[in-house]
Amino acid sequence: MTTAGLRKSAITGGIATALILAGAAITAAQAKTVKVELTAKEVTVPVDNEGHTMAAWTYNGHVPGPLIRATEGDTIEFTLKNDAANKKSHSIDMHSASADVLTEFASIKPGETKTFSYVPEHAGVFFYHCGSDPMIQHIARGMIGAVIIDPKDPNAMPKADREYVLIEHQIFENPEDVDSMMANKWKRDAFNAVPFQYDPVHDEHATQTLEAKPGERVRIYMVNAGPNEFSGFHPIAGIWDRIYPSGNPKNVMVGMQNYTLAPGDAATFDLISPKEGAYALVNHSMRAALSGAIAIIMFSEKADPTMGHGDKILVR
Amino acid sequence: MTTAGLRKSAITGGIATALILAGAAITAAQAKTVKVELTAKEVTVPVDNEGHTMAAWTYNGHVPGPLIRATEGDTIEFTLKNDAANKKSHSIDMHSASADVLTEFASIKPGETKTFSYVPEHAGVFFYHCGSDPMIQHIARGMIGAVIIDPKDPNAMPKADREYVLIEHQIFENPEDVDSMMANKWKRDAFNAVPFQYDPVHDEHATQTLEAKPGERVRIYMVNAGPNEFSGFHPIAGIWDRIYPSGNPKNVMVGMQNYTLAPGDAATFDLISPKEGAYALVNHSMRAALSGAIAIIMFSEKADPTMGHGDKILVR
Amino acid sequence: MTTAGLRKSAITGGIATALILAGAAITAAQAKTVKVELTAKEVTVPVDNEGHTMAAWTYNGHVPGPLIRATEGDTIEFTLKNDAANKKSHSIDMHSASADVLTEFASIKPGETKTFSYVPEHAGVFFYHCGSDPMIQHIARGMIGAVIIDPKDPNAMPKADREYVLIEHQIFENPEDVDSMMANKWKRDAFNAVPFQYDPVHDEHATQTLEAKPGERVRIYMVNAGPNEFSGFHPIAGIWDRIYPSGNPKNVMVGMQNYTLAPGDAATFDLISPKEGAYALVNHSMRAALSGAIAIIMFSEKADPTMGHGDKILVR
Repeated sequence: MTTAGLRKSAITGGIATALILAGAAITAAQAKTVKVELTAKEVTVPVDNEGHTMAAWTYNGHVPGPLIRATEGDTIEFTLKNDAANKKSHSIDMHSASADVLTEFASIKPGETKTFSYVPEHAGVFFYHCGSDPMIQHIARGMIGAVIIDPKDPNAMPKADREYVLIEHQIFENPEDVDSMMANKWKRDAFNAVPFQYDPVHDEHATQTLEAKPGERVRIYMVNAGPNEFSGFHPIAGIWDRIYPSGNPKNVMVGMQNYTLAPGDAATFDLISPKEGAYALVNHSMRAALSGAIAIIMFSEKADPTMGHGDKILVR
Repeated sequence: MTTAGLRKSAITGGIATALILAGAAITAAQAKTVKVELTAKEVTVPVDNEGHTMAAWTYNGHVPGPLIRATEGDTIEFTLKNDAANKKSHSIDMHSASADVLTEFASIKPGETKTFSYVPEHAGVFFYHCGSDPMIQHIARGMIGAVIIDPKDPNAMPKADREYVLIEHQIFENPEDVDSMMANKWKRDAFNAVPFQYDPVHDEHATQTLEAKPGERVRIYMVNAGPNEFSGFHPIAGIWDRIYPSGNPKNVMVGMQNYTLAPGDAATFDLISPKEGAYALVNHSMRAALSGAIAIIMFSEKADPTMGHGDKILVR
Repeated sequence: MTTAGLRKSAITGGIATALILAGAAITAAQAKTVKVELTAKEVTVPVDNEGHTMAAWTYNGHVPGPLIRATEGDTIEFTLKNDAANKKSHSIDMHSASADVLTEFASIKPGETKTFSYVPEHAGVFFYHCGSDPMIQHIARGMIGAVIIDPKDPNAMPKADREYVLIEHQIFENPEDVDSMMANKWKRDAFNAVPFQYDPVHDEHATQTLEAKPGERVRIYMVNAGPNEFSGFHPIAGIWDRIYPSGNPKNVMVGMQNYTLAPGDAATFDLISPKEGAYALVNHSMRAALSGAIAIIMFSEKADPTMGHGDKILVR
């Protein structure tokens, strides 16, 4: 094993705990080993732009968990730790993996650790979440995140100028009340855990928007975490230039106004604005949008050059 | 500017207020300017086949609003008037446009007018609706309609022999009760505003059906206005010959029994019946169908030749 | 008519009442006539793995009804009998047919019989169900089943090593309470009528799982019977190798984590596990999965060779 290809982090937009170790046990040219470590943590997190909090269950202390990223053909060496301070068992269900649900995806107790490796076979954007019983609660309380598996062929998709990850999920009034989750009585809907987080139009306490320049290809990785609701993802005032179902470059739809994502599904959406102005990205199911599933993206020649890159692909 | 290409109306099936002005400020051969004017009107409209009414908010006095139609590459010059007799602010959110949500799609007060122009970049069928706050209510009360952008290439899709527009939406008992809309407690579901409007099988007060001849290619432009429900669009006793997601000829699916339309989505569905008889077009979510989202299409050699053409593409 | 091509049954996994009569009134080479007879029976059926029962309405005494199978271009000669012991009218709505909803799909009374024939024009997997009034109740009480129309071209899809049919539907507490169905207040969700039928992980009374060997191409024909809910079909711990919307080989998606099936829709899902272990097939809407819509598929070199073939394509 060499450290020549060691990079700072394969996890973007969260607490960095991963290393990419190039050259380890690889078969294809340039395939690398990506080490990912997540720690289940039971902590309080904000649930609105005013700073109110909820007793959440998280990966690495944030909702959503860190963005995990690798390239088709890489080996992902995954470690899950269940913090000894936790009260509950937790686990990982990573949609990018071919694994065994009864062992690799099984729960571990507080203080325990588990490791497994896999080679992702399909490029795309994938949901990851806790699968411990009751799974509906572990998702609703915040154990949700995204994996991007970039295609091995760099020309498989047009180059993106900026990238954003949006993970939609419904928030319930009482995180202990599993019955309300089974009855689907959610109170708020959010992109990346906080309703109206990127929407100062609908919430005066919101402090940021997504940003891009006119003419740029903006790639949105949208994950519908559910736990129950379907989502119709639409850019108000724009049209998706391309949609890649499951984020796989082999599946492409062109010039689309909307696309349905089941709970537990994800897809890649490309957007280009020809001029300055704002679009609003929404779940077009109106009660979802008006409960928080709305994000403003501002197109301006003065767009912050750091937005949509590095840590600001998953904007907190 | 010449008037050689002036046609009676680009708006079909509604109150005609639009002119097509050929030759104005065009770049591509034969591209034309399509002037569209909509007026927000707060009026009562029928909500069943017996003539019961509801205090609606409308475009041009009807639910749904007029069909807007242009060709890829045309310029749409759009004017919205908010009738001075109205009490509420209104706006337009047109899914066929690339625009600015904060200006072009912003609300105007009673008595005000706004205008903007755009060149639709994608062929397809698109939802238009009011986006004023609370958007869920402006949609539920009737400010909904369809835009068809025909492909520039006349051979991009097989020629349709008849065309129909169906806009599905849910109707709530009390149009003032926004809470019931946010809680998704709708009472009726309809194609083109009136439950069972084209279904004398389920409603003895229904007086018409859609019509076509055996062997004809019938093109259904289906818009799911929501505001909340997804729709699975299925032809009972038939199979969709082709489906074009978002109505874009670049996206085609063949020989399909059903297709999911999110709220705020639309698609084009081609149907051919080899023989005389009836199909029933439904949202196959049974409570939606049995609440009114069902339309009979009669295939007969004696089909009315005016049906599915001109004003009878959007049958009132 | 000859009997040279007579095969035992075109109905798999149920009470066999059909004959394939080759050579009758055929136009294409090798096209055959498939006789299918279903009898509506009002009987009690199990609703859980412990043997509790419900007063159901069925085809041939089972929920779901028998699997019907033919090849594109065949003639299906269909007979429906309404058992004289029944109390209700019943009917057939077969999504694979082009028919007349007012005659061929119309209801018949107890003791009556009806027959019609059709040539399925599209390969795929299709829902069949009772369409008698109120249709939502006839579906919810169990009159549901699947039709597979195999493509005429045997190379239209990769050869499947095993095949399974899963029909999802929601079960209501009181089968007489149509209001609860219209209000969508279901209590359980199931694949093939019994919640957790193939899931000993979540239900200690479950006695079986689906089975296959590593490396085999497992083809899942999934029908969403509803009556109201959409389904996001996902293989926990795996990725769909291919998805054929509506089961039609002309529509193919590759490397997908999930696919949305409207109520009344169906699709074909191919799955290959590279190693031994278990996947869990779910409707990823969590309350559906945890209410019973979860099936374990075990990948083992010791997989029962009879599973996924013959009668064990629809495992009871």
